[in-house]
Amino acid sequence: MLVLITYDINTQTPLGRKRLRQVAKQCVNYGQRVQNSVFECVLDAAKCREVQHTLEKIIDKDKDSLRFYYLGNNYKGKVVHIGAKESFDVEDTLII
Amino acid sequence: MLVLITYDINTQTPLGRKRLRQVAKQCVNYGQRVQNSVFECVLDAAKCREVQHTLEKIIDKDKDSLRFYYLGNNYKGKVVHIGAKESFDVEDTLII
Repeated sequence: MLVLITYDINTQTPLGRKRLRQVAKQCVNYGQRVQNSVFECVLDAAKCREVQHTLEKIIDKDKDSLRFYYLGNNYKGKVVHIGAKESFDVEDTLII
Repeated sequence: MLVLITYDINTQTPLGRKRLRQVAKQCVNYGQRVQNSVFECVLDAAKCREVQHTLEKIIDKDKDSLRFYYLGNNYKGKVVHIGAKESFDVEDTLII
């Protein structure tokens, strides 16, 4: 199924910036980066649980936000993209 | 239906920062901000087209990225949130 992972990591501290890098690095292992803090991953149920568990361990739950959207198997036609394809790499930049 | 709007606006220039503000301002009119650049909107088909058209006019298609995910009407259970800033149900009444 298609799983969309979106996150907001509070990067006001060096530790926050480290968490951001760690989250992004893990997400790359599971899917395709489509925007700076949005990944699309095609995963089975076991992998879904795995990535959720992995990211949950990295984030600071008081400061960071992590969301998963389960788009099922028939996801073609449910996604519309407009504009630039490549996300610019700003892992060390605050995304607002 | 639930429509997820995600965006990356290139904010390297003042014009880019202006586009970011404009996109966010428009999105607020249609739904609930759940992360910095992620909005959840419950919209009918006409409103979907409207917001897509509105945002398309604001962004710079060479620099910015805009994505729409259509999660249908049965979206409860398809969204998992972990960490800070739990959003309220977009279909519930906001009580302040």
